[in-house]
Amino acid sequence: MSFAGKNAVVTGGLGFIGSNLARRLLEEGARVTVVDSLAPKCGANRHNLADVLDRIRLEEADLCGRLRIGPLLEGADFVFNLAGRISHLDSMTAPFEDLAINGQAHLSLLEEIRGRCPLATVVYASTRQLYGPPRYLPVDEAHPVSPVDINGVHKFSAEQYHLLFARHYGLRACALRLTNTYGPRQALSHPRFGFVGWFINRALTGQPIELFGDGAYLRDLNHVDDVVQAFLLAAGAEACAGRVFNLSGPRASLEHIAQVLAKTGGGCPVVKVEYPAQLRKLEIGDYYGSSEAFASVTGWRANPDWVGDLARTVEWFRGRLHHYLPAEGGR
Amino acid sequence: MSFAGKNAVVTGGLGFIGSNLARRLLEEGARVTVVDSLAPKCGANRHNLADVLDRIRLEEADLCGRLRIGPLLEGADFVFNLAGRISHLDSMTAPFEDLAINGQAHLSLLEEIRGRCPLATVVYASTRQLYGPPRYLPVDEAHPVSPVDINGVHKFSAEQYHLLFARHYGLRACALRLTNTYGPRQALSHPRFGFVGWFINRALTGQPIELFGDGAYLRDLNHVDDVVQAFLLAAGAEACAGRVFNLSGPRASLEHIAQVLAKTGGGCPVVKVEYPAQLRKLEIGDYYGSSEAFASVTGWRANPDWVGDLARTVEWFRGRLHHYLPAEGGR
Repeated sequence: MSFAGKNAVVTGGLGFIGSNLARRLLEEGARVTVVDSLAPKCGANRHNLADVLDRIRLEEADLCGRLRIGPLLEGADFVFNLAGRISHLDSMTAPFEDLAINGQAHLSLLEEIRGRCPLATVVYASTRQLYGPPRYLPVDEAHPVSPVDINGVHKFSAEQYHLLFARHYGLRACALRLTNTYGPRQALSHPRFGFVGWFINRALTGQPIELFGDGAYLRDLNHVDDVVQAFLLAAGAEACAGRVFNLSGPRASLEHIAQVLAKTGGGCPVVKVEYPAQLRKLEIGDYYGSSEAFASVTGWRANPDWVGDLARTVEWFRGRLHHYLPAEGGR
Repeated sequence: MSFAGKNAVVTGGLGFIGSNLARRLLEEGARVTVVDSLAPKCGANRHNLADVLDRIRLEEADLCGRLRIGPLLEGADFVFNLAGRISHLDSMTAPFEDLAINGQAHLSLLEEIRGRCPLATVVYASTRQLYGPPRYLPVDEAHPVSPVDINGVHKFSAEQYHLLFARHYGLRACALRLTNTYGPRQALSHPRFGFVGWFINRALTGQPIELFGDGAYLRDLNHVDDVVQAFLLAAGAEACAGRVFNLSGPRASLEHIAQVLAKTGGGCPVVKVEYPAQLRKLEIGDYYGSSEAFASVTGWRANPDWVGDLARTVEWFRGRLHHYLPAEGGR
């Protein structure tokens, strides 16, 4: 699949994965439109695209604003839909905001796509988080959906909207259920953006990395370059339309990940603390997924060298840290 | 569980199941508040409670109107949440309405319940429709969720909101996944209210009952009295909190059901026709569920004599038909 000369729209394109994807699409020769609402707590960071603003079209717009979004979609060959809010706790304290951003916005976008660029290929960034506590490991796509928070409910809704638009309207839409993703340009400013970014923050600012409980739970994790590659492969494979796929990665315990980051970052302490009550309700135990289905359709594989990739990520952030810490970085 | 003297709120209480439940709660000695928005296409029918209006409190209000809904919930011991829209086709043509009515409204209601009557027991009317085409039969609660339309997405969201409020806030909330339900007071005026009501309409007005395809698909079905009983049992069983249960019933082919109704109604023809294209996309093949989980917790069983129950239902509608046909009956 060549993206050269193609029109690609990236929603949430000022965010972590969105900005990496937009940059890769530029490298591939695509004409890139980035749409981002810069909504608080979603991770948008102007610095992520600051050096390529002369080569992309950047539009600040909310997906629900159909009068503004509609024209941006005219002529689109690809829509990479990465807009959203990922915080679990925020979704409980502000559930209606979560509904608007993670639910309604995507229904609105899809209705516009159906009208404006019905032949476009659409790839939606879903999450493994909607599975809830695993009933078996590794978790595949047939695993029951049992969200542990409001965010998981709405992410599932948005994912299903995409599949229904494929089924009912022939839209070439698919969804990828992402697991913990890390890499350059991720928001480090708050734990809401994921534990890896938060650990990097602690490691590079010399503060203790706190593990809840004994830190023995397993997680799988992906470097953002692998995830970006997965989006391109999904967009290029006709057989993906109407389907949802896990993106799983190499796995390690939370403590192992913390120790690697502490060491790479310069030697911050890693400490074990009691579980905060609110977070315990969101704890899912061990998690790792299977992406065999996606591999069989596209050949995608995650790089197994997570230790090296994490170390390179930490190095990338050195010297750029001020762009990724409060208040500037990662809204 | 005695409901005598208890405060019970029934949302969607002018509808089919809601009105039967409200009447039963009256018989049990409860103080009943019915909330209904009378939103179009939801099946509300003023006639359903016309003869008991002196004994219930009836409030016309939208669940999203928190200023009005909130005070109605003060002192509630039970909230039976049956508000919603069931039409599959309408959810595709008006997805944002469906989101408001079947999604957001329930988040709003739950937030009010949490503030106003956090000790109340809440039972939500969900649907087997969110399973999509069965991967195995009978379908139990562990079956994957794969909605075939927007309605199914939002019903799942609302159901999960209830479970999350149980998990996070200790709300005594549970959900019942209903299958095809029939009986007195159901809306007959349009196929959107379910095939059984529509078949009764055809049978009693002497028009042909149309079966799509060969009519061989199996369905399970419940008389509304059994469903009402299930709501009371769910409300009374502490072990139901935080869980979701199927309500399944006796099963028969669509053709068998049509033939029984045609005969009871007076002999209308039953004809087989081509599948309309739009409906084919919503077809799920055979469906019947298992309610073993609910039976094991509450002892609930559906009456197996569906032929007798259907016949009694048809008799009930004779002489009352004008209240249940357009334009009056079942908004």
